[in-house]
Amino acid sequence: MTSPADIVGKFITLEGGEGAGKSTQARRLAAALEERGLRVVLTREPGGSEGAEAVRELLMQGDERRWGPRAEALLFAAARADHVEKLIRPALKDGAWVICDRFIDSTRAYQGASGIEDAAILALHAFGSKALLPDRTILLTLPPERGVARATLRDGERADRFIARDAAFHGRVAACFDHIAEHEPERVRRVDADYGAERVTEAILTELADLLP
Amino acid sequence: MTSPADIVGKFITLEGGEGAGKSTQARRLAAALEERGLRVVLTREPGGSEGAEAVRELLMQGDERRWGPRAEALLFAAARADHVEKLIRPALKDGAWVICDRFIDSTRAYQGASGIEDAAILALHAFGSKALLPDRTILLTLPPERGVARATLRDGERADRFIARDAAFHGRVAACFDHIAEHEPERVRRVDADYGAERVTEAILTELADLLP
Ligand SMILES: Nc1ncnc2c1ncn2[C@@H]1O[C@H](COP(=O)(O)OP(=O)(O)OP(=O)(O)O)[C@@H](O)[C@H]1O
Ligand SMILES: Nc1ncnc2c1ncn2[C@@H]1O[C@H](COP(=O)(O)OP(=O)(O)OP(=O)(O)O)[C@@H](O)[C@H]1O
Ligand SMILES: [Mg+2]
Ligand SMILES: [Mg+2]
Repeated sequence: MTSPADIVGKFITLEGGEGAGKSTQARRLAAALEERGLRVVLTREPGGSEGAEAVRELLMQGDERRWGPRAEALLFAAARADHVEKLIRPALKDGAWVICDRFIDSTRAYQGASGIEDAAILALHAFGSKALLPDRTILLTLPPERGVARATLRDGERADRFIARDAAFHGRVAACFDHIAEHEPERVRRVDADYGAERVTEAILTELADLLP
Repeated sequence: MTSPADIVGKFITLEGGEGAGKSTQARRLAAALEERGLRVVLTREPGGSEGAEAVRELLMQGDERRWGPRAEALLFAAARADHVEKLIRPALKDGAWVICDRFIDSTRAYQGASGIEDAAILALHAFGSKALLPDRTILLTLPPERGVARATLRDGERADRFIARDAAFHGRVAACFDHIAEHEPERVRRVDADYGAERVTEAILTELADLLP
């Protein structure tokens, strides 16, 4: 459900594999929109609200096999339901632009790569968050091994549960993101992230041009 | 799905409102079955496995309105998925009798009383736990105000988020439990809990007689 009557702000999400530059570009995009005089709420998933951050802690702790893929999908849906209800919908209703670093497409790609059917993920999203979809999603594309290298450079040895997965897993995640972009070309726009940060920001703004006032 | 081919133990749950005597009777029933030479695993919800206990902490902390009813339903489903996968199914497969203090019917009754449709709760259970249902469920019946009085006597001022709800809420919970019992009479057996603990245990054993070796 995109932009129901009571939603006046725009909802933009940044997606892509590890180290593609989502967090960097989310910050840069927020600054660029504020410069244009827009009120911006910058947030991220998992997390973004008090309850969702507590669930994020559960998801990120422990070893890679702590949660089965179905329990994990339910926890992500619970965190997102809280985030949407407490932060995202009120901000949009209030006229802000909401920029979110990862959202439903990350769950579709990562849980999809773990074997969960896309329709089931979307059903959980319908239940928890009334199927709220972004007005636009920027998919930052970068070969998985280059993204993991960037993230490892950033984090040193502190790899989290997801980064620690093997190359085949990251390949499946990238394929799931591609599949989503192919099937939802109006909402999801691919941006090549294999350039300097400034050039990537410009490409993102080009993909948002029709939404900007 | 009751007792698929690879499940050889029996799965028994105890349900009912606050203070009806579920925990007391779960312990007494476990002892009675062990006396008959059965191997018993006694567990509870929310919780019962390491991951599920961590989710229980999230659910029980904070004030009554910390979680919306949909986020709450997703968290319960996540905890249950972990509990079923890590503890209940392996124990049943191993031939044990599993006695669980609250299970899916509590979610149906409490979240139902909060306005969530029963079909949605069952869909989450199908997704997370392959719709595992108990071989038998004992519904301990007691007027809500008598149960809350028993629980308050037990806990003093330490009321948790659920006990703290008002009388109308507890009335709706009782009505949801009744509705389930009416619609699933083979699985769900009502036992009047307004007697001494020993007499209640005997009534429970009578309702399990056809399952006992
Ligand atoms: N265009 C770029 N060129 C080179 N390095 C970049 C670029 N964008 C970001 N980086 C660097 O790559 C690393 C990963 O960037 P960032 O944290 O923004 O990625 P991310 O997609 O949010 O990663 P994660 O999936 O781990 O959250 C950081 O050290 C960042 O400074
Ligand atoms: N048959 C009974 N007669 C009188 N008191 C009882 C009986 N069964 C249990 N009690 C007492 O009532 C209180 C509540 O019992 P118990 O903790 O077993 O209920 P419960 O259904 O597990 O409650 P909760 O919903 O809070 O978990 C305890 O103090 C217990 O000792
Ligand atoms: Mg990031
Ligand atoms: Mg109890």
